[in-house]
Amino acid sequence: MRVLAIDTSNLVLSVAVMDETRVLGEWTSNQNKNHSITLMDGISMVLNQCKVEPEELDGIAVAKGPGSYTGVRIGVATAKSMAWALQVPVVGLSSLQAVAMNALGYSGGIVPLFDARRGQVYTGLYRSEQVVTVKNELPDRIMLLTDWLMEVKEAVGDESLLFMGEDLHIHQAVIQETLGNQAIFPAPTLYHPRAAQIGWLALQEFKQGKGTDAHELVPDYLQVAEAEAKWLAKQEK
Amino acid sequence: MRVLAIDTSNLVLSVAVMDETRVLGEWTSNQNKNHSITLMDGISMVLNQCKVEPEELDGIAVAKGPGSYTGVRIGVATAKSMAWALQVPVVGLSSLQAVAMNALGYSGGIVPLFDARRGQVYTGLYRSEQVVTVKNELPDRIMLLTDWLMEVKEAVGDESLLFMGEDLHIHQAVIQETLGNQAIFPAPTLYHPRAAQIGWLALQEFKQGKGTDAHELVPDYLQVAEAEAKWLAKQEK
Repeated sequence: MRVLAIDTSNLVLSVAVMDETRVLGEWTSNQNKNHSITLMDGISMVLNQCKVEPEELDGIAVAKGPGSYTGVRIGVATAKSMAWALQVPVVGLSSLQAVAMNALGYSGGIVPLFDARRGQVYTGLYRSEQVVTVKNELPDRIMLLTDWLMEVKEAVGDESLLFMGEDLHIHQAVIQETLGNQAIFPAPTLYHPRAAQIGWLALQEFKQGKGTDAHELVPDYLQVAEAEAKWLAKQEK
Repeated sequence: MRVLAIDTSNLVLSVAVMDETRVLGEWTSNQNKNHSITLMDGISMVLNQCKVEPEELDGIAVAKGPGSYTGVRIGVATAKSMAWALQVPVVGLSSLQAVAMNALGYSGGIVPLFDARRGQVYTGLYRSEQVVTVKNELPDRIMLLTDWLMEVKEAVGDESLLFMGEDLHIHQAVIQETLGNQAIFPAPTLYHPRAAQIGWLALQEFKQGKGTDAHELVPDYLQVAEAEAKWLAKQEK
């Protein structure tokens, strides 16, 4: 089974083609360029390099959020369009789980995070299972970092917590101050999402028949956009 | 400090540009194409995408073996040429350590391996240190897999051993049979070397002033080539 996987949900753009046994090709860019312009080029480059025609794909995998509204929309819309055009199933996965997969095999708690402004983060608590997948232990959420650190500490006790993500530098001082040596910060090669990890997670879902029709896939923003919130507030008046 | 990192030592081709804080861009291809033809294209593509001019690089990092003679030579020759032309230091790192870096944070023994034909493997024993680097515990070597499994088991006792590498499928049955549940096989997203991991290891060396002049870098084949062995045997007669 051959899968195209994409992630544009945050600053990083990542595209991979893989099957059950290996990653055929993977391109990751951390240039914060306009994903709406660069994503199709990236997909086309990776497919060409892998000598895979779009018609040879058996499924599409995408990071469905949380993250930047625009970034999530670009990824999900592209995945839906391709899945619809090629008549193949699609799977949407958590952008946080994708990052957590980089700590596959870590024995403590895994805490991916993205900055969500005003002291807030998109985050969740994950656990590595058998160096093959990561399972969610505390659900993805948007929350004040300071509150989150208390909650996650209560959940794991004295266990070590591995923090990951390209936005870590914004919050690292607070995390360090609050948790001390309990907080672990890995090499930056583990910070960014890799599309291959999303592809691998999706392959497990496809195998269980959990892929959905293109029309059923929806983004998972974890919060309503500011414009939507204002519109909703206005309706209530 | 900006580093270009490359690995063509085995079937996989990987190119990355990174600095101390993040991976700027990374391209990995598992197509077993002719690295001598595709490497310069890959380097040029990654530099272009990252908007980095060759003159802006502060160092070159390369996987110096073990692996395919031709693959190692292509990578090392390219790294030396670029380092010489750009007048920047170069660091050569173990191709096995590069793969072991994918298990950063794993608490047991990490055993990367490449097939070396006739029941032999290129391998070594590594350990993750603080989710930042992996250190060598039993040196890289070429050895009969069956002998190696005995030696590595003696070294770690009952601890779990994580086996990794694109050639794992060739040897997995023997490993499983010999070590049973002590042998762990991760998701295939961890099998292939990532140039970014090589770049990250090299950055630590550069920071300690351990980068060398282009002329001092030599491949590390771990064994003489068949042609060389025959020639040497002939001289002795």
